[in-house]
Amino acid sequence: MRAVDILKKKRDGGELTDEELAFLIRNYTAGQIPDYQISAFLMAVFFRGMSESEMSAMTREMRRSGSEFDLSAIPGRKVDKHSTGGVGDKTSLIIAPVLAAAGVIVPMISGRALAHTGGTLDKLESIPGFNVRLGARKFHEILSRVGACLIGQTEDIVPADRKLYALRDVTATVESHPLIAASIMSKKLAEGIDGLVLDVKTGNGAFMKRQENAERLAQAMVGIGKASGKRVVALVTDMNQPLGEWVGNSLEVIECLNVLKGGGPGDLTLLCEELSVYCLILGERASGLEEARRLYQKVIASGAGLDKFREIVHAQGGNPAFLEDTSLLPHARYNAPVTVAESGYIKGIDTEKVGIAMCVLGAGRETVDSIIDPAVGMQAHKKLGDFADAGEPLCTVYYNDDARAQAALNLLRESYTLSPNREEPPMLIKKVIS
Amino acid sequence: MRAVDILKKKRDGGELTDEELAFLIRNYTAGQIPDYQISAFLMAVFFRGMSESEMSAMTREMRRSGSEFDLSAIPGRKVDKHSTGGVGDKTSLIIAPVLAAAGVIVPMISGRALAHTGGTLDKLESIPGFNVRLGARKFHEILSRVGACLIGQTEDIVPADRKLYALRDVTATVESHPLIAASIMSKKLAEGIDGLVLDVKTGNGAFMKRQENAERLAQAMVGIGKASGKRVVALVTDMNQPLGEWVGNSLEVIECLNVLKGGGPGDLTLLCEELSVYCLILGERASGLEEARRLYQKVIASGAGLDKFREIVHAQGGNPAFLEDTSLLPHARYNAPVTVAESGYIKGIDTEKVGIAMCVLGAGRETVDSIIDPAVGMQAHKKLGDFADAGEPLCTVYYNDDARAQAALNLLRESYTLSPNREEPPMLIKKVIS
Repeated sequence: MRAVDILKKKRDGGELTDEELAFLIRNYTAGQIPDYQISAFLMAVFFRGMSESEMSAMTREMRRSGSEFDLSAIPGRKVDKHSTGGVGDKTSLIIAPVLAAAGVIVPMISGRALAHTGGTLDKLESIPGFNVRLGARKFHEILSRVGACLIGQTEDIVPADRKLYALRDVTATVESHPLIAASIMSKKLAEGIDGLVLDVKTGNGAFMKRQENAERLAQAMVGIGKASGKRVVALVTDMNQPLGEWVGNSLEVIECLNVLKGGGPGDLTLLCEELSVYCLILGERASGLEEARRLYQKVIASGAGLDKFREIVHAQGGNPAFLEDTSLLPHARYNAPVTVAESGYIKGIDTEKVGIAMCVLGAGRETVDSIIDPAVGMQAHKKLGDFADAGEPLCTVYYNDDARAQAALNLLRESYTLSPNREEPPMLIKKVIS
Repeated sequence: MRAVDILKKKRDGGELTDEELAFLIRNYTAGQIPDYQISAFLMAVFFRGMSESEMSAMTREMRRSGSEFDLSAIPGRKVDKHSTGGVGDKTSLIIAPVLAAAGVIVPMISGRALAHTGGTLDKLESIPGFNVRLGARKFHEILSRVGACLIGQTEDIVPADRKLYALRDVTATVESHPLIAASIMSKKLAEGIDGLVLDVKTGNGAFMKRQENAERLAQAMVGIGKASGKRVVALVTDMNQPLGEWVGNSLEVIECLNVLKGGGPGDLTLLCEELSVYCLILGERASGLEEARRLYQKVIASGAGLDKFREIVHAQGGNPAFLEDTSLLPHARYNAPVTVAESGYIKGIDTEKVGIAMCVLGAGRETVDSIIDPAVGMQAHKKLGDFADAGEPLCTVYYNDDARAQAALNLLRESYTLSPNREEPPMLIKKVIS
């Protein structure tokens, strides 16, 4: 078997066998096939796509490139929720404790802020003492005892993905459904889960701007999951405006507390409930949607979700005192509003630009080495379809640095489009694929 | 400017600017852009193609990567003929002396046998003493004095092509019109020529099996030539059977002598005349097709072409005695015919398979390191459309090694398809593009 022949087959639209994909991935990870052959392969995949069978084989080989968590000693179903990334997307911090409170085991391996999107790990790290860098043993121990643990990618999980992702990043082969699907699913399946609920974002603040692309990606991931014997459900959800009211790390933690206490804005609470409902079904804590919905509401209303969050924070080294006194979290010194010149209905929010404004402010990463300011961010006062009077604030920026704030305010001002006529805001949950 | 952004632009169907292509080629040649980005770029070009302007810019930058011949001190027009490769294609050995005898300067940089195709350099090296490895100074001196010189690629001409070709070879990106066109034209334009006649082969013995692909390649090369201010004519010609009667290095040299003496088979003499005619026009030795044709015939009939060949052989270190006594050339010890079981008309000849049989025999290269036996080869007795009686030989193999001969004979036997009905053989010259 020669790499060049496999490349030629893919290039000419042939379907690769399991053996051919195994040959490529194994030898690439082992340093036996050079970068320049794999980058040509990735570009051919960009143009030719991959069949379900090819995606499954690729995902399987990527998983096998490293170690995998074995959670079989922990009783109960293990379920994770994964989002493809957006602005203000903080559902993991709510869903993980809710599920654990309901008896589902939640081994959650999350990511950091990337490009214009936020990251669960950065949000958690705004909690003083919270440690997301735990080894496999500690992860296992907390999962057994608390039922949920939220950590970052470890070095030995799917090393093939790290190598492939670094190559895709510099060869213009990131934007390919099968490659994105294999990357996400190889890591999620290595967590040792029984079920997975995917939140595939679409819209101007998502990586997948067009809904058909998001649906194709969702379909691909569900297919890969099924082929490996896991139950996977994907929700395609709207990301044409920030989710919830707040963006920024400690600010989003506070918003999550409100949701866990039974409050919070409508879009965020709806999405948390919907995602949790499917997780509860996959976790076999409910047999249908209605039962799952009642269970979710009970966990929130009883305070069991909030208590579980406290437990998680404590188990992962954080000081839970902030749950009663949020002033213990980092907070910004200054704030300034973005006001509107002429009244109108909010017609559009360039959500990627909002995300970039947050990066500029220090809430996200402009480069991999950027240092995040956990306190800064914004509160959105107006959502799509809302009316804003002349002089009313659209949002308020929380900041520590004048120059950064100025740049962010300018970007935010450009992000909003107003119209004299009201347009119906987009549906939050567009499709459920299972 | 970043390579990844240029890749993304090409990937998404954008047209690259001269500056962007210059950035890629210059920095790649200088080792500043890694192989893995260029291989992804090449694969994107495979799928997206290139505009005329992109091909010209790429060719120009490739030329600039090394030194170029400056032949301006030699009076007269400089014209070369280049073929994309076939089986039994020996026209260079006839055309170069004919043109030089007619007063055209012919700076011919040729290639070696590659895959199933033969190479001009290997044919010339079957002449005892003939040296194709001459430096720029000697090349210039022979061109001034004799009017034609045939050498191999030098190290300092278009180094970018060597680097790109080696990468294309291992990344399944060889078969791309714009990349083939830029590769050929960058080398030809670096020869310091005024005009170029291209023989673009198509058929089952050519690299371009389909005529439309050959035409596209021809068009691309003519466009690149024009954009650089050169006169270029391309003939798309048939390669569905070996050209002429003989295949094999010294055997083809002998066939060339016959043509230069006014003999030789019809297809070979026709193609030599047609290619020469366009060269004579580009070389300004004739103002039209008829005048050029008369000049070609005069050079052959007068023996001036044969005399010029003698001069070239002598100038390049060869012993011209073989022109009078061809037994001085290497000759094979044995020969054996391929005979036909049932009578019929020759309907098809798998010419690539014939070429592979010649490789197996030792006339070509199975790998880059193969040692060529200059004496071995074959004589084709039957061409497409000819009738063969049961027991009649289709061809005769000339060989030195029994085992190789057996393998070659089997392949040759498989190469011929006979039919009870005669089909019209393909036209030799399919199209002239200028």
